[in-house]
Amino acid sequence: MINIGIIGAGTVGSSVIKILKQNKDIIQARAGKSLIIKTAVVKNINKKRDFEDVIITDDVDKVLNDKDIDIVVELMGGVDDAFEVVKKALKNGKAVITANKAMLAYHRYELQDIAGKLAFEYEAAVAGGIPIITALRDGLTANHILSIKGIMNGTTNYMLDAMINDGINYKDILKKAQDLGYAEADPSFDVGGTDAAHKLLILASIAYGIDAKPEDILIEGIENIALEDIKFAKEFDYTIKLLAIANKVENKVELRVHPVLISNKKMIAKIDGVMNGISVVGDKVGETLYYGAGAGGDATASAVIANIVDIARQGKASPMLGFDKPLEQNLKLVKKGDIRTKYYIRFCVANQTGVLNSISEILSKKGISIETMLQNQKDKNRANLSLSIYECCEKDINEALDKIRELEFVDENISKIRIEV
Amino acid sequence: MINIGIIGAGTVGSSVIKILKQNKDIIQARAGKSLIIKTAVVKNINKKRDFEDVIITDDVDKVLNDKDIDIVVELMGGVDDAFEVVKKALKNGKAVITANKAMLAYHRYELQDIAGKLAFEYEAAVAGGIPIITALRDGLTANHILSIKGIMNGTTNYMLDAMINDGINYKDILKKAQDLGYAEADPSFDVGGTDAAHKLLILASIAYGIDAKPEDILIEGIENIALEDIKFAKEFDYTIKLLAIANKVENKVELRVHPVLISNKKMIAKIDGVMNGISVVGDKVGETLYYGAGAGGDATASAVIANIVDIARQGKASPMLGFDKPLEQNLKLVKKGDIRTKYYIRFCVANQTGVLNSISEILSKKGISIETMLQNQKDKNRANLSLSIYECCEKDINEALDKIRELEFVDENISKIRIEV
Repeated sequence: MINIGIIGAGTVGSSVIKILKQNKDIIQARAGKSLIIKTAVVKNINKKRDFEDVIITDDVDKVLNDKDIDIVVELMGGVDDAFEVVKKALKNGKAVITANKAMLAYHRYELQDIAGKLAFEYEAAVAGGIPIITALRDGLTANHILSIKGIMNGTTNYMLDAMINDGINYKDILKKAQDLGYAEADPSFDVGGTDAAHKLLILASIAYGIDAKPEDILIEGIENIALEDIKFAKEFDYTIKLLAIANKVENKVELRVHPVLISNKKMIAKIDGVMNGISVVGDKVGETLYYGAGAGGDATASAVIANIVDIARQGKASPMLGFDKPLEQNLKLVKKGDIRTKYYIRFCVANQTGVLNSISEILSKKGISIETMLQNQKDKNRANLSLSIYECCEKDINEALDKIRELEFVDENISKIRIEV
Repeated sequence: MINIGIIGAGTVGSSVIKILKQNKDIIQARAGKSLIIKTAVVKNINKKRDFEDVIITDDVDKVLNDKDIDIVVELMGGVDDAFEVVKKALKNGKAVITANKAMLAYHRYELQDIAGKLAFEYEAAVAGGIPIITALRDGLTANHILSIKGIMNGTTNYMLDAMINDGINYKDILKKAQDLGYAEADPSFDVGGTDAAHKLLILASIAYGIDAKPEDILIEGIENIALEDIKFAKEFDYTIKLLAIANKVENKVELRVHPVLISNKKMIAKIDGVMNGISVVGDKVGETLYYGAGAGGDATASAVIANIVDIARQGKASPMLGFDKPLEQNLKLVKKGDIRTKYYIRFCVANQTGVLNSISEILSKKGISIETMLQNQKDKNRANLSLSIYECCEKDINEALDKIRELEFVDENISKIRIEV
């Protein structure tokens, strides 16, 4: 028998309790043991809950100091408080399961050290119900990982999908996503890319053993995608996705989250609506892709319970972040400004001679070459000038765009979307 | 240090040896141990091989009776001889890894009994480099599995893709697949569906704890797909895939392998070329999908090595077939004739009155209802009559078609392809 304490009984916690009851037959046949939720820690102890046979408390120590409890499931969220709770659970010798991506984005290496030989699992922290942690940590161990490209935020994928397929503009679709409960009242965590970045950092540790914080990596959101950019994308058989990318370039690793233009033919481009998908390329296995629900109470609880079963089955689990000892040759993070990609750029310019010349001169001075160009009349006096440019580094294109922005016949708002090949 | 003996050093075995050397840095950092291929058993000991530091022998007992060897990797293929070798390895207390789907299709439950607490792993046996065994056995344990739908044979997926997208007929694309090395000189194992059926049986054990042999299940290949059927498919925004399907219907499970017409909008329909993909629907997690290379030396070796790392990391692995104890309520296999699906049927008929009436009368007597109908002139005297019919059972449609086949104005060759919704 395994006794479990849950800290935080919101959407996911309630689903864990519910599913352990509803699917008790198959879960216990798979685990070979009875899995009992002994105690749930909640914020508001007066709220009515349907948790039969579970002790409800608002005192976290009722779980942390209970010698009968084998596994602590942390679902309270937030970074600092959760970190303290989890540390104490580990110090008290308990296995820990968490769905807390923000905490892991900041504290995963400290937690690995503290956990030592104790099981510390977090399948639910990345891409909800998709068993991507298991796949990357246990399924692809033969490979040097060449790249990870993931749609790891369902809200933004839903929004981009509607903008592209139904022509809805950013503001309207954001409101709709909020009405449907996909986006929070403050949506910045999703649309700004932070949520996806937290997940990327976790995967990058498993793939590369690389320690980085959200502040260290390039993060851009979807707030500035305009319908005019979408029109361009469709014309060239691209779609637009918010991708979280880890890319091995020789002995360095790029980590970045930003919207991309990507060919509709790529598997990752085919992931629609609120779904998540992660493409992982290994040097031996080639491309593998994992698809499923990235959020929602039941899907996330499915991952939490998989970890409970793992721990129930095994004495010793895989190393928390996938490495039993460090790589001999440590991989370094590529600096933000040194990241190289292709770009699509759209300028809104006045209809006058010399415009293209001035722009291309500035680009050329930075060593940036134009690949394709498309000009569309916007109104009587202005035109949209859309360029795709060959691979160049972040720093150079930003400096060039700052100069171009100073030209009097160019609008300040310049669209810049990376092209993923 | 873990010592490994490999039995069978063909394409996959050679890749295992090569990758363990090439990616030694990352594999050993992940496993925390040195992984040494001590001995390889080969058929022809005189063939020159590039296996430095590996003992080459043609005597299988040099591996099975070597007390230093911890893990036996069986890559010899075939059913009976491999089964004897693997049994002996387990009796000698060795962990076993196999890529042998045919052996598992027949002997997996006996092997599970013999293995007992010893590790017995087989990630490479299903869908090559895709970690689908890990996903299903460890990642989705919270769920009752509602269905598995897989493209698990790359050869046939490549062929169907070319027939649909390039209009190449079956005979020509089979020859091309053979020239490219995708299909064997005797291609019946691939095109007839047996290969996919072996893999399906393995997955069905993990999902449902169901014991069945290839003979027990419905298996049809792609040999009879005609370009006229493909034309129909395209007209209605379907594609054609050879799917291996496990479907839970109340307390029973359907297991079947056959071509299907499936909407292009489904994720599984988007898997092109030689790639494999498996869609798994859980009652809690919803649909998840796994995509990657299903064959090839390096991709398959990637899965074998993942199992080696698993065993090196852990004392005790997950239960071989995913269940530590049987399900209380055993699931039963649906009889072949009782399987219910929708169908597309194409008759080639003479141009005369009363044809449709005779056909629809026979169908109607069996309680089979027509959903849509399309008639195309084939030549001056004959027409193609394409029907889609509502869900009915295998036995009824087969009996109806036997009667229709007797009608003098209907050609003997009737196309029958199930429609997957």
